[in-house]
Amino acid sequence: MSLSLNQWTTRRWSVAEAVDGCVRHGLQAVGLWRQNVAEQGLAESVKLVREAGLRVSSLCRGGFLTTGSAESLDDNRRAVDEAAELEAACLVLVVGGLPGVTPGEPLGSFSRDLGGARERVAESLAVLAPYAGERGVKLAIEPLHPMYCADRAVVSTLGQALDIAERLPAEQVGVVVDTFHVWWDPQVFEQIARAGERVFSYQVCDYLHPLPADVLLGRGMMGDGVIDFAPITRAVLAAGYAGDVEVEIFNADVWAADPDEVVATMKERYASVCGF
Amino acid sequence: MSLSLNQWTTRRWSVAEAVDGCVRHGLQAVGLWRQNVAEQGLAESVKLVREAGLRVSSLCRGGFLTTGSAESLDDNRRAVDEAAELEAACLVLVVGGLPGVTPGEPLGSFSRDLGGARERVAESLAVLAPYAGERGVKLAIEPLHPMYCADRAVVSTLGQALDIAERLPAEQVGVVVDTFHVWWDPQVFEQIARAGERVFSYQVCDYLHPLPADVLLGRGMMGDGVIDFAPITRAVLAAGYAGDVEVEIFNADVWAADPDEVVATMKERYASVCGF
Repeated sequence: MSLSLNQWTTRRWSVAEAVDGCVRHGLQAVGLWRQNVAEQGLAESVKLVREAGLRVSSLCRGGFLTTGSAESLDDNRRAVDEAAELEAACLVLVVGGLPGVTPGEPLGSFSRDLGGARERVAESLAVLAPYAGERGVKLAIEPLHPMYCADRAVVSTLGQALDIAERLPAEQVGVVVDTFHVWWDPQVFEQIARAGERVFSYQVCDYLHPLPADVLLGRGMMGDGVIDFAPITRAVLAAGYAGDVEVEIFNADVWAADPDEVVATMKERYASVCGF
Repeated sequence: MSLSLNQWTTRRWSVAEAVDGCVRHGLQAVGLWRQNVAEQGLAESVKLVREAGLRVSSLCRGGFLTTGSAESLDDNRRAVDEAAELEAACLVLVVGGLPGVTPGEPLGSFSRDLGGARERVAESLAVLAPYAGERGVKLAIEPLHPMYCADRAVVSTLGQALDIAERLPAEQVGVVVDTFHVWWDPQVFEQIARAGERVFSYQVCDYLHPLPADVLLGRGMMGDGVIDFAPITRAVLAAGYAGDVEVEIFNADVWAADPDEVVATMKERYASVCGF
């Protein structure tokens, strides 16, 4: 496994700047976000990563599939097309929360039908998987920490993500293992082993304590929080994963710091904290 | 099932005031907290609930068993003794977080050995269960929401709590089903069914969105958050639970309100939102 910079770790960097940063720091892969790719231009983004000789370890993100709406499916098809152009190792799917619940906003009109929302996700994936398969794109369901169940992802555990993924071919639908989201799960090791070749992405960042007021920003540099990384890394390796390890940190202090220093720290911490 | 007031919902009420409040509002049961019982005096608390004809639906709380220390075991034996005196339906156990991690405080010296902390819990329960059994006290492990895994409870799901409980007799060790903590769990219905007679307590309160800055206070009055209560209530009933339903809300606005209005609202919401 080798280290990859998810570009939201250095959030102020454009695609061009993130590509330059990866080359400057000797990284071989980068994780890109759709809105940044759109700002840079898809064709230009493809050109930049190819000329730099970088792998695109993931494209973030599709998803928001809990309504099963035609708009949502169309947007995910566009995301698949973009991932195909970028030859991304996978398209990360954040499946969405309860229909009508918006992150950071008070509750208005919304649905409490959690089971129904989860079934819409499975139905939507059944539609998208063949489309992705025809384009050689792997769909990676990202279970998010249960504290985001209402507003961001009704898929909360690796076991649940695999229950959905296993309805579809292993080369089309798999999972993201993100330490922040899964570290607490009593079943994490058995579910990583179960995932096997369906581990499409391994993301590392720490779980801070105490959490900041905006819990979305509770992700920290490896070593700054409570996670014991080595056993999870070993489990991912034992499952057969041989892709890149992405560092994806949402954190106000990290975003305020000099991006080159962030990448240098990330490399140092990965070597000292995440190994085995 | 009938409604019970957990006294922290009306946090400013002493044991005497909570007992009076329950009688005034026609409730038949109250959930008590150890520090409030200590302030009132154990013998006086026993006298108050007996004279009022109230059941004690739970005593909160023992636990903090992740170090396995002698002090922790001694304190839990005292909690068992108190629960026995009060004839509480169960002693609620919040098992504790990673050793050295304190709620609300920055990380200092602590252990990242989550698996070890979980094993200490199981070992401590094996010591405490016979002691509780001899005194007719049921130990109820409360799985807390995974966002509290680091600092409050390394037991995060009903399935995990049952894996621990099932090593010990069903009349000694069971679980609390608290809607706030378990609503998101994809396995919640199958694990409630599995629990059967080991459901020792059913607690209801809602999960607010967005969460407040202090996530401990994200518990809301039923109907104010995202939880669909009826399916969970039905599952608890189907498992054979016939005890009281406690309302336990940690919420700055609820604590600031007139306690009599809080109890009136609680009764109204329980009837309109939590039924089946």
